[in-house]
Amino acid sequence: MPTSEIICVGTELLLGDVIDTNSACIGKMLSSLGVDIFYKSTVGDNPDRIKKVVDHALKRSDIVIICGGVGPTEDDITKQVVSEVLKKKLVVDRDVVQKIKEKFINRVVANKTILKQAMIPTSAKIIPNPIGTAPGIILEDKGKIVILLPGVPEELRAMIPQVEDYLLKTIKPRVVIKSRVLRVSGMGESDVNNKISSFMAGENPTVALLAKKGEVHIRITAKFPPEKVDSEIFKTEKAIRDKIGSYIFGVDDETLEQVVGKLLIQKNLAISLAESCSGGLVSHRLTNVSGISKCYLCGIVSYSNQAKAELLGVPEELIREKGAVSPEVAREMARRVRKITGADISLGITGIAGPTGGTKEKPVGLVYIALSTQKGEICRKYVFSGDRESIKWKVSQTALDLLRRHLLSIDS
Amino acid sequence: MPTSEIICVGTELLLGDVIDTNSACIGKMLSSLGVDIFYKSTVGDNPDRIKKVVDHALKRSDIVIICGGVGPTEDDITKQVVSEVLKKKLVVDRDVVQKIKEKFINRVVANKTILKQAMIPTSAKIIPNPIGTAPGIILEDKGKIVILLPGVPEELRAMIPQVEDYLLKTIKPRVVIKSRVLRVSGMGESDVNNKISSFMAGENPTVALLAKKGEVHIRITAKFPPEKVDSEIFKTEKAIRDKIGSYIFGVDDETLEQVVGKLLIQKNLAISLAESCSGGLVSHRLTNVSGISKCYLCGIVSYSNQAKAELLGVPEELIREKGAVSPEVAREMARRVRKITGADISLGITGIAGPTGGTKEKPVGLVYIALSTQKGEICRKYVFSGDRESIKWKVSQTALDLLRRHLLSIDS
Repeated sequence: MPTSEIICVGTELLLGDVIDTNSACIGKMLSSLGVDIFYKSTVGDNPDRIKKVVDHALKRSDIVIICGGVGPTEDDITKQVVSEVLKKKLVVDRDVVQKIKEKFINRVVANKTILKQAMIPTSAKIIPNPIGTAPGIILEDKGKIVILLPGVPEELRAMIPQVEDYLLKTIKPRVVIKSRVLRVSGMGESDVNNKISSFMAGENPTVALLAKKGEVHIRITAKFPPEKVDSEIFKTEKAIRDKIGSYIFGVDDETLEQVVGKLLIQKNLAISLAESCSGGLVSHRLTNVSGISKCYLCGIVSYSNQAKAELLGVPEELIREKGAVSPEVAREMARRVRKITGADISLGITGIAGPTGGTKEKPVGLVYIALSTQKGEICRKYVFSGDRESIKWKVSQTALDLLRRHLLSIDS
Repeated sequence: MPTSEIICVGTELLLGDVIDTNSACIGKMLSSLGVDIFYKSTVGDNPDRIKKVVDHALKRSDIVIICGGVGPTEDDITKQVVSEVLKKKLVVDRDVVQKIKEKFINRVVANKTILKQAMIPTSAKIIPNPIGTAPGIILEDKGKIVILLPGVPEELRAMIPQVEDYLLKTIKPRVVIKSRVLRVSGMGESDVNNKISSFMAGENPTVALLAKKGEVHIRITAKFPPEKVDSEIFKTEKAIRDKIGSYIFGVDDETLEQVVGKLLIQKNLAISLAESCSGGLVSHRLTNVSGISKCYLCGIVSYSNQAKAELLGVPEELIREKGAVSPEVAREMARRVRKITGADISLGITGIAGPTGGTKEKPVGLVYIALSTQKGEICRKYVFSGDRESIKWKVSQTALDLLRRHLLSIDS
């Protein structure tokens, strides 16, 4: 199997102003193909030093993936330097010019900008950029493969599948490494660890835990021939599901909002939300799901007490008596937003996101989440820790998980 | 001044399972001392390859900072390899043994574990680890400085001030490097580039552009004697502001929601929002600002037409005639949510976040944002590109920027 290395170009990465996530993304893809990654280098926007690093990489590795410095601005020089090292001429690619012009159809852009991005080394393959304008470039030279990708993380991520396809066809790996992540909500890292510790001693597949914002990830990693790797992962997954299945809400990149959104769409249920301390985050997350407009009717971010009273109709004396952060108000918020909007199901969320506003009886992080249907309301109390944004996130995660469990429990 | 480079050791970094934040932390410290950082390398837990990388680094740099692989486990081999390269013997340091034993006072730990961490190359200086047990190590050899640090991010971060102190005393920098980021909204990367290209050819300060989600960062980096660096950055900043000042919403870590939140709080204005395609994201971002509850009254995520009509009171025939995605409906949403909630200022946002729902006349990405005050409404049309989440983000960014420009334009 070929060996590989990754080069990131950008002075901002050396100065520590930007955290590099691109190389991790490339590293994951390469290791999934069973390609060994032995080195990763970062170099600033300096032609001599980029040249040295690329030269050195080509001496010790078969595949060199370089990201950053392929954009339209003055300091984007990666393409020029790599072409020099490989002794290729840069020529304007008419197809690329056309594609860039299509992207800029509604904007006036200097010709120079377009031409710079459309300069492609001779005999290169183009990787279309589905998001931005700078295309990726594949060069094959004396048994080596050099791949240039843009440094903008979302553009790079969008182009990784095309790079993977190309490498799969070109290097034909015998064993592949695959990972599958089981995503857990409603159970902490040490509890998950205790429940599944017997699997964590395994050597192939390996099982590892990672604590994430409001959830825990169980990563199963297996190294097998392509035809066997999926079944080996599946065996371990099934054994883990037998232990803690109901806490696993999704796999890999599946988010909790996607899972909940899919359930709502499947069951054809209309939902509305009344949020206070979560400030619209649950609405934002649910409306990230494409197609949710069939189910999501309305969200009311009733931040002020006045909004709770006037817009939702929560009785003012209830707020005065029990306090805005109380199970009674959460239930009323949920019930009333459901009735007003004619939804099948609704949530009412009230709490204290902090850092101010807490008291001894009602500390920062105290949150009530109520779920309302035609059959009535349930309400749960939580106390979350962390800063304002982290508490908001945990509230949204918990609210969505409550919804998920409810949707799984009902027929239809 | 000496040149430097950073080496990170750890196979997990190459595989992309862990995002490296250590090198950014070291990079910031080095650059603040005016030490040039020319390279950064990452290598797995393999003695031969670590040796090669360290050898190579010592040939081209004066200061080499290595992090990771100094712990007690089998794959922690950095100390051994570096000692070999520098031809130093590893001997047990009694003081270090004592300190580790004090840390482990409440735990049973194998003697082997303690001894491994207390093995120190001869003539090394120790950097105490205030959090964990593996100490940092400083080696001076033939005019070169090699510093070993643990790879656990919180331990490394806690030791950086001691490394900085040591370097300050040892290399006595005459110049320091400082950076300042100007954050731009409402102008694309190439437009910013064209407007300020004259500054981008400068050598000191340097000016670089970075495209970020919905904004562009202009980074000014200056290298001068400590007493001069701030004024040099300020001069360049002022010149850039003279060109595109109104597009610069903040500096360094300041977010757009923080800037807008601060303006609202300063001017003591009450705000309400009616969001459709942005799905609550503007509400979520504004409510991330601590103290905003004084100003933020309410948000209505009127996703369905029914919610627009019944909750906001947008006339149904207007929606039928002009369509839910129209300037007329955006204006009505803004005007009505302001009136209903008694706010001073409000936004109405309607559009098509995609990926479905677009037509030839009203494509995915078409968005109308209206701003309403007692004086009336203004409404702007935009066409954004990208996936659903990216369009939502750009909508929220543009809406907040519209708000910012309005707040800056009014007295009080």
